[in-house]
Amino acid sequence: MSRHAVLLLSCRDRPGIVAAVAGFVTDIGGNIVEAEQHTDPQDGMFFQRVQFTVDHLQVDEDGVLEAFTPVADRFGMEVQLRFTDWQPRTAVLASKPPHCLADVLARAYTGELALDIGLVVSNHDDHAGLADAFKVPFHFVPVVDGDRGAQEAEVDALLRADGAELVVLARYMLILSPWFVDRWAGRIINIHHSFLPAFVGASPYRQAHDRGVKIIGATAHYVTAGLDQGPIIEQDVTRVSHRDDVATLARRGRDLEVTVLGRALRAHLEHRILVWGNRTIVFG
Amino acid sequence: MSRHAVLLLSCRDRPGIVAAVAGFVTDIGGNIVEAEQHTDPQDGMFFQRVQFTVDHLQVDEDGVLEAFTPVADRFGMEVQLRFTDWQPRTAVLASKPPHCLADVLARAYTGELALDIGLVVSNHDDHAGLADAFKVPFHFVPVVDGDRGAQEAEVDALLRADGAELVVLARYMLILSPWFVDRWAGRIINIHHSFLPAFVGASPYRQAHDRGVKIIGATAHYVTAGLDQGPIIEQDVTRVSHRDDVATLARRGRDLEVTVLGRALRAHLEHRILVWGNRTIVFG
Amino acid sequence: MSRHAVLLLSCRDRPGIVAAVAGFVTDIGGNIVEAEQHTDPQDGMFFQRVQFTVDHLQVDEDGVLEAFTPVADRFGMEVQLRFTDWQPRTAVLASKPPHCLADVLARAYTGELALDIGLVVSNHDDHAGLADAFKVPFHFVPVVDGDRGAQEAEVDALLRADGAELVVLARYMLILSPWFVDRWAGRIINIHHSFLPAFVGASPYRQAHDRGVKIIGATAHYVTAGLDQGPIIEQDVTRVSHRDDVATLARRGRDLEVTVLGRALRAHLEHRILVWGNRTIVFG
Amino acid sequence: MSRHAVLLLSCRDRPGIVAAVAGFVTDIGGNIVEAEQHTDPQDGMFFQRVQFTVDHLQVDEDGVLEAFTPVADRFGMEVQLRFTDWQPRTAVLASKPPHCLADVLARAYTGELALDIGLVVSNHDDHAGLADAFKVPFHFVPVVDGDRGAQEAEVDALLRADGAELVVLARYMLILSPWFVDRWAGRIINIHHSFLPAFVGASPYRQAHDRGVKIIGATAHYVTAGLDQGPIIEQDVTRVSHRDDVATLARRGRDLEVTVLGRALRAHLEHRILVWGNRTIVFG
Repeated sequence: MSRHAVLLLSCRDRPGIVAAVAGFVTDIGGNIVEAEQHTDPQDGMFFQRVQFTVDHLQVDEDGVLEAFTPVADRFGMEVQLRFTDWQPRTAVLASKPPHCLADVLARAYTGELALDIGLVVSNHDDHAGLADAFKVPFHFVPVVDGDRGAQEAEVDALLRADGAELVVLARYMLILSPWFVDRWAGRIINIHHSFLPAFVGASPYRQAHDRGVKIIGATAHYVTAGLDQGPIIEQDVTRVSHRDDVATLARRGRDLEVTVLGRALRAHLEHRILVWGNRTIVFG
Repeated sequence: MSRHAVLLLSCRDRPGIVAAVAGFVTDIGGNIVEAEQHTDPQDGMFFQRVQFTVDHLQVDEDGVLEAFTPVADRFGMEVQLRFTDWQPRTAVLASKPPHCLADVLARAYTGELALDIGLVVSNHDDHAGLADAFKVPFHFVPVVDGDRGAQEAEVDALLRADGAELVVLARYMLILSPWFVDRWAGRIINIHHSFLPAFVGASPYRQAHDRGVKIIGATAHYVTAGLDQGPIIEQDVTRVSHRDDVATLARRGRDLEVTVLGRALRAHLEHRILVWGNRTIVFG
Repeated sequence: MSRHAVLLLSCRDRPGIVAAVAGFVTDIGGNIVEAEQHTDPQDGMFFQRVQFTVDHLQVDEDGVLEAFTPVADRFGMEVQLRFTDWQPRTAVLASKPPHCLADVLARAYTGELALDIGLVVSNHDDHAGLADAFKVPFHFVPVVDGDRGAQEAEVDALLRADGAELVVLARYMLILSPWFVDRWAGRIINIHHSFLPAFVGASPYRQAHDRGVKIIGATAHYVTAGLDQGPIIEQDVTRVSHRDDVATLARRGRDLEVTVLGRALRAHLEHRILVWGNRTIVFG
Repeated sequence: MSRHAVLLLSCRDRPGIVAAVAGFVTDIGGNIVEAEQHTDPQDGMFFQRVQFTVDHLQVDEDGVLEAFTPVADRFGMEVQLRFTDWQPRTAVLASKPPHCLADVLARAYTGELALDIGLVVSNHDDHAGLADAFKVPFHFVPVVDGDRGAQEAEVDALLRADGAELVVLARYMLILSPWFVDRWAGRIINIHHSFLPAFVGASPYRQAHDRGVKIIGATAHYVTAGLDQGPIIEQDVTRVSHRDDVATLARRGRDLEVTVLGRALRAHLEHRILVWGNRTIVFG
């Protein structure tokens, strides 16, 4: 696959944006290979993802953003520029359940997900073998004497030391403090084992069983200060029945969780996501 | 299709129930054509649906329940006996949106659903033409001067006068009083336009849009005193995206609503549902 | 909803198309409210759907295509211009099964689908009552003495007399001749009761049962000379099991058929479909 | 989870079977915890899965089948008796694509699937590292000088030497000879990367792309002599669009393949499957 540039844009909607952006790409010698836009008439906003070739650019790659400044200024745009070969340094945090961790490690190993996993961190010591199998350093950081703050500070230090650009909560069951969420804002993706906003918090499969739902789900979202309240990236569901007890719901759910987390990570890695308020635009 | 009998049974679980029920059917000259059972180990309960032939029964159909009494007594069973050619006298209640009403009327007309629809009742006068098209009497029962009680009493009187055995809330937007729900307990099926328990109450598509979910749903349930809290019979979902505004969510949802309501009605008509607490067992 | 114009474009891919089209719309005083493009790198093709406002156009609506000619010529484009308030004169053809016919009639009646249904044609006389309920003229055109050609000629004459712009095969079981398909090319939409290309031709539910599939489907497609070979517009599926005999598969399938046909018709009515070879681009 | 016994039964349908089987279990001191039956009226066949407790059996576990002989003989039953703690010695065969192999290995490692994987065999040498990560012996058995027979004989010898009870084709792209299929009949499960019977054979994602389908699927089935013709155990699908080129279809499909293969393996491990002709009964 060729290397491309990706512009992610948002601004108030007005006539002429699409023409200006397309003109810019043509002017610098790029060819648009994918472009998708979204207009939110209710909020009066415009969002766009433009992917274009870079092999015949007439500006340095480092100069693209600067060259774009006149367009951005004209429309008051928020702009992100990224390239398609990005492979972020990644930390995976997991508690007891191994399935999401095992899946993320295996997909990074086979190249299915472009993750450069630098470390696995867990508040349990169960996963050393799994991390080791994939030759990823494992850090056991338990909560000692109930001191959640110390544990979190240690996790943060490990992530910073490793240069993490992305933090994957692969069924990490400790709630993160606002300061931690703040520091890693927009870079933490969590998988929650319910179809949010149903069944926030603990034991969602138990909650689902008690409510007698006929379908269960999983939700991947960016983490914000509100528990399970962050912008949803991806969800999926599967049918269940009265025959499924809580353990069976959990087992069926595990298939969903790995699939949904994988899709969300891919969208993030491919720069397909714009966050607007508490919602996401995920370009196809 | 041949006419069959259906036994719906529930009792505390103990050894020997299946053998006793199967023996009973064999003894009275029936042949079991479908049998499904469910054991809830958590609650220690046993549930069963047994469908059997009646053309060579050695007892009168009216005598089946009596003949079954020794088995029922031995295990402390709750028992319902029904026959597969049941076609309940049905009232359909609908407010402004016509799609569920139109669908239920059309499916009763083509024989897809074994409903004997005696009347359509609405608090708006929009649907007279639709009811008339299918030659079903239409009753416009508006709320006058805010007197919800009077309106509800009139609806109740209409239903009783017509001998309704089943009440379908086909997007009926007035909340029913406890006394009404009580009187028609187990015989009112509602379609709610969300994936319950997410988005209870008014404007669920608006709520879904604001939360930024990636999937929307519809839920058919028996009506109980708690708003949108009754035992869920059937749910289904469909994928949506950031491109879908509230109106588009509502449109996509309409397809779901008619499908989910139709499946729930069919399960009810085929005596496939047992209610246990706030959950349903829906036999396949 | 405001009235908009829709340009559907296709041409060989080259740099500058998006900029040129966006520039054109801005130049004539339109504002793009939706734009989606698709590049097929394998075939080297570019496809686009551009929806724009028309209330402040600086050219007559009739003059838009002419004004666009320079752009179209420069890129060698195939161009279609349509407006969003299009409500095509429609003929519905149906054989014995009533469910798709009933659904299309009901959705046109409630405004769910912007169809102006001029007539219903059937080779059986079962549906006169249904058409009459919705006040649509019904034509019973049977095959007499095995003369399929005469029957087809009569159907064609009826459609032409009524000015049909769209022909919906709502479970019409007679295979159309090449001359008929040719005359109505791009304007006939069929619903086939299988997940094509599996189970082409007669009795697909029987075929599905005999193969023991765990999922069944329905497919809406434009009709071409090859039986069930035309460009697929929409498909959907539902889970089935060993418990489902052929009749049950057919019943479950009916829900799918109406939903899939409805979605395909909507995409057609909203000018979202471009046909390329034997495939469709269906813009979101 | 307690250890249970599972009886899988099939015979011609006649009155009294359910009563006789239930009576038998009660008589030997078992308690039925799950029972599901299926009657195929078209073929006149009866199938049943009965799971029962064994902790208070009044016969030896080894004697259960013999004790059941009178019932089996009376109805002419085919009978299989198994126990729920079965963990079959398993061989995984894989060609180049690693995702199904990695998933099966990971799920066996985490205990998600009760597989005792004795060896991995591949006609490519790419997967030694992956097998090694999970500490499973890896055997590279390439086709040398086009001699497929020799390669197959070597694979067979490895499987027999290891005592394999189950052979998982985790995207193994060599077609097995009839003698091999015969020897391992009922014990080979394959994952095919299409929604069978559509797109049999090579490059199904290419075929799907060229046909322009809107949904792709994956199918797990028992392997028989006819290529991709064996009894289907499980299928699932996912929605695709015109934007998805062949590589993207393949990527989306990989998620399906691992999920579908996992579900099929679980059903096999839990003794939920009866094969009848070319179809399966998969008890819930």
